[in-house]
Order: sequence, then C-alpha cells, then structure tokens
Amino acid sequence: MDIKTINRIRQFSSERDWEQFHSPANLAKAISIESSELLECFLWDEENHDLSCVKEELADVLVYCRNLLDKLELDEDEIINEKMDKNEAKYPVEKAKGCSTKYDKL
Amino acid sequence: MDIKTINRIRQFSSERDWEQFHSPANLAKAISIESSELLECFLWDEENHDLSCVKEELADVLVYCRNLLDKLELDEDEIINEKMDKNEAKYPVEKAKGCSTKYDKL
Amino acid sequence: MDIKTINRIRQFSSERDWEQFHSPANLAKAISIESSELLECFLWDEENHDLSCVKEELADVLVYCRNLLDKLELDEDEIINEKMDKNEAKYPVEKAKGCSTKYDKL
Amino acid sequence: MDIKTINRIRQFSSERDWEQFHSPANLAKAISIESSELLECFLWDEENHDLSCVKEELADVLVYCRNLLDKLELDEDEIINEKMDKNEAKYPVEKAKGCSTKYDKL
Repeated sequence: MDIKTINRIRQFSSERDWEQFHSPANLAKAISIESSELLECFLWDEENHDLSCVKEELADVLVYCRNLLDKLELDEDEIINEKMDKNEAKYPVEKAKGCSTKYDKL
Repeated sequence: MDIKTINRIRQFSSERDWEQFHSPANLAKAISIESSELLECFLWDEENHDLSCVKEELADVLVYCRNLLDKLELDEDEIINEKMDKNEAKYPVEKAKGCSTKYDKL
Repeated sequence: MDIKTINRIRQFSSERDWEQFHSPANLAKAISIESSELLECFLWDEENHDLSCVKEELADVLVYCRNLLDKLELDEDEIINEKMDKNEAKYPVEKAKGCSTKYDKL
Repeated sequence: MDIKTINRIRQFSSERDWEQFHSPANLAKAISIESSELLECFLWDEENHDLSCVKEELADVLVYCRNLLDKLELDEDEIINEKMDKNEAKYPVEKAKGCSTKYDKL
C-alpha cells in the first residue's frame, strides 16, 4: 500500500475521532464482518460475481487491516515474512505440490 | 506491501501448484476463515490478547487478500482509494465525528 | 432441540462456571468463529466434505446459539416465526421462485 | 425447534424452488455470513445492542442450520449430544472451572 493511501486512511479516522472505537478486538471484529460481506458476493453463485461488490468489500477488509497494523504498531512486511517462514516449513514443496491438504494431515 | 514480499507470496503458490485452488470464491472463503481465526485471539478476553497469535492470523488474512488482488488483477491502492471516496461521502466529518453510528442511520 | 439436550448444555456451562464469559457479544463472536470452522470443512473442495467435521462444527454453532437464546431469554420458535413472516413478505413466491437474487434486487 | 416451525422452513424453500441452491457448501457459507451479521449487532458497542437486530440475525443463523441439518439428514439432538460427549471429556470440571482457556492449553 502506498504511503499516500495509508495516510488517507489514518486521516479519515482521526478527522472523525474514530480511534476511540478502534480497539484491537473491535478491529478484529470489523475485519471479520467485512470479509463475510466479501464472501457474500460469492454466496449462491460462485462463477458470476459482481466485480464492483468484490472490489468494495475487499477494500473494506484491507482498510481495517491497516487500522489494526497501525493500532498494534506492526509492520505489514515483517509479519507476513515471519508467517511465510512458517508456511514454507509447514508445506514443503515436495509434499504439498498440487495438493490442498492441511499441513497437519500432510 | 513490498514488491519482494508480494513476489514471495506469488512464488509460494506457484511452486506448490496451488493457483488451481485459488478461485475468487475460494479465496474469499479463505479470507473469511482466517479473519475468524484472528477474531478468536480476542474471543473470551478482549483486553489480553496473545500478540504472536494476532500477528500470524493477520498475516494470513493479508496473504489471501494479496492472492485475491492478484487473481482478479486488482490494484490495492486503486480499490482502496475508490472506497475511501465513498466512505468520505457517506460519513461527512460534521455528522460522523465521535460517533460510531452506521451511515444509513446517521 | 430436546429439553434433555438443552439441559445438558445448560449444566455443562453452569458446572464449569462459564456463564461469566457468556455475554451476548462474546456468544455472537463464538457463533461466528464456529460457523467459520464449519465453512472450513468446505474450503478447497466443496464436493467432498468430511462429514464428521461438519457434524462437530455444526453442533458447536447450535450449542452457542442455544447459549445466546438462554442468555437473552429468547424463544427459538418465536424469533424464527417472526423472521419467517418477514422472509415470506420479502420473497413472494411468484417473484422469488427458482431465483437466488437478494430481495432488494428482486 | 417445533415441528411446525421446521415444516414452515421446509415449505418456504420448496415453494420457491430454492433447494437447488442449498448445497452443503452454500449453506455453510450462508450460516457464516448470517452469523457475521449477528456479530455486527455488537460491533462498536458491546453493551448496548439492538435486540430486534439480534433476534432477526440469530433467527437467520438457525434457519440455515436447519436447512443444513435437513440437507445432510442429520438429527440435531444426536450431533449435539455426540459433541457434548467430546466437550465434557476435553473440559473436565476440575480443570476448566471458572477458566476460559482452550482445551489444548489446559
């Protein structure tokens, strides 16, 4: 995400005095609710989604994720790379290739 | 997200031949499931979360969001800025300040 | 649900002194988290689900729904019949037949 | 749930020819989406929920749970009692009393 976009998100909350609602728990709820709205774009028909619906709901998820990163003072790249270290260890290429089985059943 | 991180995510899926599972609908399901695991870090006690749990689950959400952006060839900043245009119109500062009411009840 | 099953659920919580955690908000979180675990049984392969997984996760959802009904002193049949009144009005047979469109777009 | 309520739910779907949309995977998605709408009643303020919102969304969750029980020909009491057997074994009273810790950390 561009720093200009990040700053726009921050300014949006601060101008509205909304940081008071942004406890980590509330933001986790908000991310979960928005990701469910994203899922709703695919509810009864997985093949024909409304792209404008998907774009809006995915944006909502990403905005709340940014709020949570800010709140907890986390670096996006750092937490992702730490998780990718684990994913690469849990899903070795030779075992996981072409297979969607969860790691604990591989 | 850094382009190096993005490329690491892409390589992880492509080495494992997992793009076949990454339909938009499946990725929306995955985002929703991971965001629920994030919420679980705050389930019974909202004040005392396990930070390493939060970091891992938030990273999972962000990785699947990146997969979905890639799959649909969307630009993260573009969809967020389009959504922020709408949010700013729906929640004018003078009406929304200090208030968590949803726009349709403002 | 049989009254014996309902009583078993109530006794389980009360013996463990868990009602203190069962605020309506916490139970709503728990329902959402368990329903996401149910969804996970269908994540990458919608056709071939593990039935024992589905049974366990659906049971978890239903148990927390029962906890929430109890907490708010709601009658299951009453709230469902009130909602079915609305559903029948929102989705008239002649308009909704064979069509999964949401009511606001019918 | 009363057999009259169950029959009303079944008739609602069959009159609208909606069973075609009720694959187990789609119903799991619907349960997850509705439970997220239930959670939204508690999003920014956990203490002051709108009871009519809670009643409607909880009813939606329960209706889709009933659809899934029907689709998979499951008996509600049976799957709950099987799960309660496991819960009672995982959370012995002496260990779990007054404590919200997950079983794998007890």
